[in-house]
Amino acid sequence: EKVAAMLAKKKLLGELGIEKPGKFVLKCPKGTRDYGAKAMAVRESVLKIMTDTFKKHGAETIETPVFELRDVLLGKYGEEGGKLVYDLQDQGGELLSMRYDLTVPFARYLAMNKVAAMKRYHIARVYRRDQPVMTRGRYREFYQCDFDIAGKYDSMIPEAECLKILDEVLSTLNLGQYVIKLNHRLMLDGMFAVIGADDSQFKSVCASVDKLDKEPWEKVEEELIKERGLSPDAAERLGSFVRFRELNPDLDNVAVLDQMMQIPELAANAKFKQGVEEIKLLLTYCESFGVSNAVRVEPSLARGLDYYTGAIYEAVIPNGLEGVKDEEGQPVGVGSVAGGGRYDGLVGMFAPKASVPCCGLSFGIERLFAIIEAKNAAEQTAVRTSTTQVLVASAQKNLLAHRMRIVGDLWSWGVHAEMTYKANPKLLNQLQYAEERLIPFVLIVGEQELKEGVVKLRTTETREEKNVKLDELKSTLAQMLAL
Amino acid sequence: EKVAAMLAKKKLLGELGIEKPGKFVLKCPKGTRDYGAKAMAVRESVLKIMTDTFKKHGAETIETPVFELRDVLLGKYGEEGGKLVYDLQDQGGELLSMRYDLTVPFARYLAMNKVAAMKRYHIARVYRRDQPVMTRGRYREFYQCDFDIAGKYDSMIPEAECLKILDEVLSTLNLGQYVIKLNHRLMLDGMFAVIGADDSQFKSVCASVDKLDKEPWEKVEEELIKERGLSPDAAERLGSFVRFRELNPDLDNVAVLDQMMQIPELAANAKFKQGVEEIKLLLTYCESFGVSNAVRVEPSLARGLDYYTGAIYEAVIPNGLEGVKDEEGQPVGVGSVAGGGRYDGLVGMFAPKASVPCCGLSFGIERLFAIIEAKNAAEQTAVRTSTTQVLVASAQKNLLAHRMRIVGDLWSWGVHAEMTYKANPKLLNQLQYAEERLIPFVLIVGEQELKEGVVKLRTTETREEKNVKLDELKSTLAQMLAL
Repeated sequence: EKVAAMLAKKKLLGELGIEKPGKFVLKCPKGTRDYGAKAMAVRESVLKIMTDTFKKHGAETIETPVFELRDVLLGKYGEEGGKLVYDLQDQGGELLSMRYDLTVPFARYLAMNKVAAMKRYHIARVYRRDQPVMTRGRYREFYQCDFDIAGKYDSMIPEAECLKILDEVLSTLNLGQYVIKLNHRLMLDGMFAVIGADDSQFKSVCASVDKLDKEPWEKVEEELIKERGLSPDAAERLGSFVRFRELNPDLDNVAVLDQMMQIPELAANAKFKQGVEEIKLLLTYCESFGVSNAVRVEPSLARGLDYYTGAIYEAVIPNGLEGVKDEEGQPVGVGSVAGGGRYDGLVGMFAPKASVPCCGLSFGIERLFAIIEAKNAAEQTAVRTSTTQVLVASAQKNLLAHRMRIVGDLWSWGVHAEMTYKANPKLLNQLQYAEERLIPFVLIVGEQELKEGVVKLRTTETREEKNVKLDELKSTLAQMLAL
Repeated sequence: EKVAAMLAKKKLLGELGIEKPGKFVLKCPKGTRDYGAKAMAVRESVLKIMTDTFKKHGAETIETPVFELRDVLLGKYGEEGGKLVYDLQDQGGELLSMRYDLTVPFARYLAMNKVAAMKRYHIARVYRRDQPVMTRGRYREFYQCDFDIAGKYDSMIPEAECLKILDEVLSTLNLGQYVIKLNHRLMLDGMFAVIGADDSQFKSVCASVDKLDKEPWEKVEEELIKERGLSPDAAERLGSFVRFRELNPDLDNVAVLDQMMQIPELAANAKFKQGVEEIKLLLTYCESFGVSNAVRVEPSLARGLDYYTGAIYEAVIPNGLEGVKDEEGQPVGVGSVAGGGRYDGLVGMFAPKASVPCCGLSFGIERLFAIIEAKNAAEQTAVRTSTTQVLVASAQKNLLAHRMRIVGDLWSWGVHAEMTYKANPKLLNQLQYAEERLIPFVLIVGEQELKEGVVKLRTTETREEKNVKLDELKSTLAQMLAL
């Protein structure tokens, strides 16, 4: 009974985040994780695809501080987002908060440095005091990977490049079929105006509509009426608009837009009309750029953030990866993996005189990591965590100086090489190290071989061995490793 | 008079970090900076040298959260360091602090994940509420670039690889002559014991001795007597030890050690003797690895951190870069640019049962950035901030779709390409963009040329132009750009 009471108390203290005083628990802060060498190798392979693509499109990169003056972030994320910002303790001096995304710091950067035009990418961690769901890649400290085009340009050309980049990255990642949903803030504004919803309802109605890819219309309709305050008529009307694509599955992108424009009230709404015209222009640009047919006009796409002013888009992998399940047995890969849109007003919030129109996109890297890690696990893909090409080993004792001299030569030739840090390691342990670490070659230094002026070269995979003359080692390795 | 009073008040408020309420100042937090595209390009070129070298030596990389449980950092940086740690506000839940370096988080990582052996590098930002001196590269948020070898190995082999890496990176950076000073914690302990200083004086005496590379002995001696509590005799004795190298400039590394061992009290001290023997072993290993003769035994090297237990080392660029001055007209490049040593006790502070011996090194990246930025400015080196190879331009109006199609082709061939986001840009503006951004080639689309099935290829540097057939564009570019 005493034990049960103690356990209950311990559980309570644990839930409250209170540890027994003096007891030191070794852990990462809640909602954060370490990236070990394997996770880093996966991460680097994903990020390389993104940075290579951004660079191919001529982007520069910048870096901003991990925290900002609290006033810079204040009010930019809406009420809900604001609650999730990490504040630093007031230790005298300025009041600081951790960045919540990379978009607001980018806008601050443009405004502060009076930059009128820039195409930049930024890959860095952001911070949200949200409820973490670590098995699904939802953390309090997580990577964002953003690409944005700032500057006064002609309509829809930057947006077209954003969609092209989304398309290139997703096709290179090779995670199965993806869809890039496309909508326009002005089309949403127009639809909402036609059904009589006012501006104050915009965000909450968007939040309900946005659930349409996960929930049936009936449930969304109920929410719109009971929680968002729409009349049954208005809700039904809104349904006929936002479900236009779903209800007319045979129409192509242009036909969806044209037929919605056949609805007199929508056609009469100036905002809706402008939105449609811009999206049609964007579609022709996508064709010129050679964007794949993954792009789909989707009137129900309603990304939550208030700051979007034009085209909005979101990339979705609709089906789970075949045969790949997460730790809870759920299919992996479902859902949104990237998104973005135009936000013309944000820089103006910092520098009203020098407003800089922007559009951009952001990849949900943590989710992509989670998908790829699950895929690697399912396919039992071996992940190399180092780039070592050659392990320099010894067959007998007292050969340390020889090993050191040879590995030193290898480094000076640019070969990625290692040796174990033991003076007299066992050969078996050294060969095992090479096999575990997937090091492709082992150079074995032996007494007899040294006398003959040779060294043994072993191929880890085939276990084949052959002698190489020491004075031909450089040219042999150069050829083998394509140095 | 009123104006003067107002200005004085404003200055006072500014110094206290208090801004007029309601007035919004657009700035980065004190002691932090944005990295613009040029600074990032320099940074990436420096970090590439480091990561390439670490990878050549078989290192893996990890990442840890930017903040840790406050208890993890507590007491690891000594009293002075502890005061400089940024705390997060208590928003319910755990008490967190920003990391002060990457070494303590690495030790926490090893202990928590029960990793007994690892060779890892970690490049990331750390946080210190120090007085910033931004013109000299001293920030509150700054990069560290660490390489460490953890594991139970034979004496001095890991240290030798650390020195080899220091030597390789500094020679590749090509910032002029450098010296790698080398000393041993046990030699310092021995010298201090011989003059009768006790353990409590270790840190303060070290701090004074460490100033010998900037200040004359007389000043250091005065400080040792007046502030550190040494007797004049003890101070003089200590001077004869730590200045042994300085007072015997003709001796080589081994001779310095051998002749110090001729001093009976030092030879009789077990710690000093062990330190000397280990350094002598390390020197032979350095020779086997082919470390340059930049390594210099320096008995006055006394790195401040308490946690070092064995060999310690520090790389210094003693002379300013020729002709390169900083913003204040001072020569640039003087001082310590990297350092490290053995710290066998740190992991044990987290997991007493599983102590993991470690040694490592850390590059002072911000100082290296500052040196290289000053060098680039002095030599008027043009820094490319993007990798764009080809700008696709148009000579007349109404060619947007053609430009888009060609740039889309280029991307699909892997060419790094851009076009301006205007529908009908002026040719002159496009050519100017290519020249400003150092884009080597421009493809000019023109009406007449399209009719002839060609496109004009312009080399930015020479302004030479030639026509290329559209159906030979891919092979021409592939050859020119070595794709």
